[in-house]
Amino acid sequence: MSASIDQEDALVTSTDPLHPANLISELCASFYRLGWVTGTGGGICIRTDDKVYIAPSGVQKERIEPSHIFVLPYPQAEPSPHTDRIFLRRPKLNLKESACTPLFWNAFTVRNAGSCIHTHSQNAVMATLLWEKEKMFKISHQVKMIKGVRIGGNGPTLSYLDTLEVPIINNTPNEEDLKDSMKEAMEQYPRAAGILVLRHGIYVWGDDWQKAKTQTECLDYLLEIGVKMKLAGLPTVLNE
Amino acid sequence: MSASIDQEDALVTSTDPLHPANLISELCASFYRLGWVTGTGGGICIRTDDKVYIAPSGVQKERIEPSHIFVLPYPQAEPSPHTDRIFLRRPKLNLKESACTPLFWNAFTVRNAGSCIHTHSQNAVMATLLWEKEKMFKISHQVKMIKGVRIGGNGPTLSYLDTLEVPIINNTPNEEDLKDSMKEAMEQYPRAAGILVLRHGIYVWGDDWQKAKTQTECLDYLLEIGVKMKLAGLPTVLNE
Amino acid sequence: MSASIDQEDALVTSTDPLHPANLISELCASFYRLGWVTGTGGGICIRTDDKVYIAPSGVQKERIEPSHIFVLPYPQAEPSPHTDRIFLRRPKLNLKESACTPLFWNAFTVRNAGSCIHTHSQNAVMATLLWEKEKMFKISHQVKMIKGVRIGGNGPTLSYLDTLEVPIINNTPNEEDLKDSMKEAMEQYPRAAGILVLRHGIYVWGDDWQKAKTQTECLDYLLEIGVKMKLAGLPTVLNE
Amino acid sequence: MSASIDQEDALVTSTDPLHPANLISELCASFYRLGWVTGTGGGICIRTDDKVYIAPSGVQKERIEPSHIFVLPYPQAEPSPHTDRIFLRRPKLNLKESACTPLFWNAFTVRNAGSCIHTHSQNAVMATLLWEKEKMFKISHQVKMIKGVRIGGNGPTLSYLDTLEVPIINNTPNEEDLKDSMKEAMEQYPRAAGILVLRHGIYVWGDDWQKAKTQTECLDYLLEIGVKMKLAGLPTVLNE
Repeated sequence: MSASIDQEDALVTSTDPLHPANLISELCASFYRLGWVTGTGGGICIRTDDKVYIAPSGVQKERIEPSHIFVLPYPQAEPSPHTDRIFLRRPKLNLKESACTPLFWNAFTVRNAGSCIHTHSQNAVMATLLWEKEKMFKISHQVKMIKGVRIGGNGPTLSYLDTLEVPIINNTPNEEDLKDSMKEAMEQYPRAAGILVLRHGIYVWGDDWQKAKTQTECLDYLLEIGVKMKLAGLPTVLNE
Repeated sequence: MSASIDQEDALVTSTDPLHPANLISELCASFYRLGWVTGTGGGICIRTDDKVYIAPSGVQKERIEPSHIFVLPYPQAEPSPHTDRIFLRRPKLNLKESACTPLFWNAFTVRNAGSCIHTHSQNAVMATLLWEKEKMFKISHQVKMIKGVRIGGNGPTLSYLDTLEVPIINNTPNEEDLKDSMKEAMEQYPRAAGILVLRHGIYVWGDDWQKAKTQTECLDYLLEIGVKMKLAGLPTVLNE
Repeated sequence: MSASIDQEDALVTSTDPLHPANLISELCASFYRLGWVTGTGGGICIRTDDKVYIAPSGVQKERIEPSHIFVLPYPQAEPSPHTDRIFLRRPKLNLKESACTPLFWNAFTVRNAGSCIHTHSQNAVMATLLWEKEKMFKISHQVKMIKGVRIGGNGPTLSYLDTLEVPIINNTPNEEDLKDSMKEAMEQYPRAAGILVLRHGIYVWGDDWQKAKTQTECLDYLLEIGVKMKLAGLPTVLNE
Repeated sequence: MSASIDQEDALVTSTDPLHPANLISELCASFYRLGWVTGTGGGICIRTDDKVYIAPSGVQKERIEPSHIFVLPYPQAEPSPHTDRIFLRRPKLNLKESACTPLFWNAFTVRNAGSCIHTHSQNAVMATLLWEKEKMFKISHQVKMIKGVRIGGNGPTLSYLDTLEVPIINNTPNEEDLKDSMKEAMEQYPRAAGILVLRHGIYVWGDDWQKAKTQTECLDYLLEIGVKMKLAGLPTVLNE
């Protein structure tokens, strides 16, 4: 038994700063400083070939330690949203599985992502409100930031002439219940690199944590400048 | 005598980063970076079963050291606001007891809180001005952040369908004089997780420092987005 | 000669983090993070009984080292603005005396200050533009922050019922030429705790560096909230 | 061969924090915290007498290590934008040359700069939108910040009475294609200390990294305050 526990702990114990358990702790602290994950919400999960590393629910994201990380086998049969998944490791502390797990899983199964990030950035929330009727945030001609985003989140990068489009789905009382509408939106808009959730935040994914993170930065930048432009009366999409 | 002094110092001396005296120092520095406690105001106090740890008044909150912390026995008979309380330890330096002490005490006696935070966040102050007539800040449908707040600050978390309401009380020339009106508001609005003070800031509490801190983050986030929405002409409360 | 140089260096060499040469370096880096001293401008000087410590002109304020600090004897005969002062130590590097020196000196001679801070905070500059006609920034009823400011910068603290008033003087092509108008404003408004300079920034002083710093924080907070209120159409001064 | 590789690595290996390879890593991390280089874009390059140090393209700018730096000989025959340049060192990792290289080169050849910085600061982008018709950002009477900018980026500093003018050039699908229009603008406006790119960002240069950095800070400050003034209905240029 103690051997088995030691084996479980070994999954999140490493001196390599690039080990997923170390990265999640470091990146969540950095996201906290960006205002993306205050109040315990939001975070990042990382998938390797056969494992998913994920931070717990309801904890202070700037204070995560590698020992807090859950590890799940991948792939595994798609459970219904409210069913417990299979775990390779659960933290010994009384920590809860993240309610984002089914949403992160969408990114893995629908887009074969290696990492998925969820933020409550106020730029994202303001954009969902200012583009609520259109159900789609759109911006064009922002060189470099648009080119920093990949088609579908995992394809080639958008070109300068592309209009970036991020669908906005409705919010639900429970985060798990977003799973189906997020999946639908991902399938309906295969070019979308992220999904905005009304009055809530954004989900962004990538082939690995670096791509997920830099795409989240690009999208957040575009949401921020888009909100500023809209409030200043400037159009965010130009007709050629 | 020197033995007794050593015993007093032992109350705030620990190598454990989670000891209240160490936590208060660290958290106040972090609140300074968030803009919550500039100019010496604001802070956090922590209560254990039988002791209250509290930072001094009028000091730079990002430079507090454990040796600056006051320690009071808990419970103790409710003194009138301007009466000195009983202390287990006073810092040797010429430091003054925090004027927030009676307000923090409200959170302990009325809500059985284990920690209370006071900020001068500009989000809180702007909200008190923009909702001054209503004497109540209200926001709804902000998933996750509303669910990060507990009913009364110490109960179960609000549901997604709840409208968050934070009462706004009038300011007074002396902080101590807020004690009664804060207590009244806490009793009149038992579901409120914090009390806003007009042109001044906010008080938030929780069962322990983690809950007090994460609820303060959620409320500050909601105040910030609420102010942005109001200034952009968007309603913060939706009719179902 | 080398002995004399060593003696000069000894003036800025100390392992005590509270030595003025160490403090100036640390505080300027912290002011840089607050956006007060970007682009080499702004800074803090500290006066002891018989010495003034001052950072050089035109250097990156977040990269100051104690060896960069100038030391001047105090008091010394008031030179005309463009006359070289007497120095106890000049840095060996080819560094220029701060153009703020005559302004800082005003705070020493007119208010007997022990420290003076100059920032280019955008809150200060925006306030000078929005209150340009009145030549006076005014705000009332902001409890705690107003009470964190001292009458004249070195007297008792303002009361909650006081209206904070900060005079705005005109800008001049050369910073040294502000000396006389700043001095005049300090004499005309003996209760003012700082002097705003149109399209430029603010000077704030205090009995020591702690008081100068916390008063600068309180004033900057009040300038920031004042600008927000004005732009939102809210009055910053209430009639009782 | 391994000797030659060692020689190449020696170009970016130094314990001196002021070595260009160390500086670029440190400064990019600092620019990330300022919001200038999120999402892998932007950065700084440094030129010594005979070498140019430049960060790779498409990497997280806050995580650059000296071993990631490219080194090029200087001068070298001006290649057409899409032709590979000659390198003294390429990082062993699979990293791409920065698309900014031809733009940075403009600063070296047209202005004899020792360093050039490119940011995607939202202040710069908003200014290009609000001054889009004029194709020129203009601001006057902002003492200190205007005086912190050098005529042409490498001449004497502007005087207080000068109006700062920064040309805005059109964006292009590929960053390399900005080379000619940036060069033209630099020649047409020899007094300009930087070039804004519509919906994209700014290029700023200086005799060395310190001057490039402090001028970028001054320009970014002026762009930020200019945008705030314009949105508040205040003129940024005064008639004397």
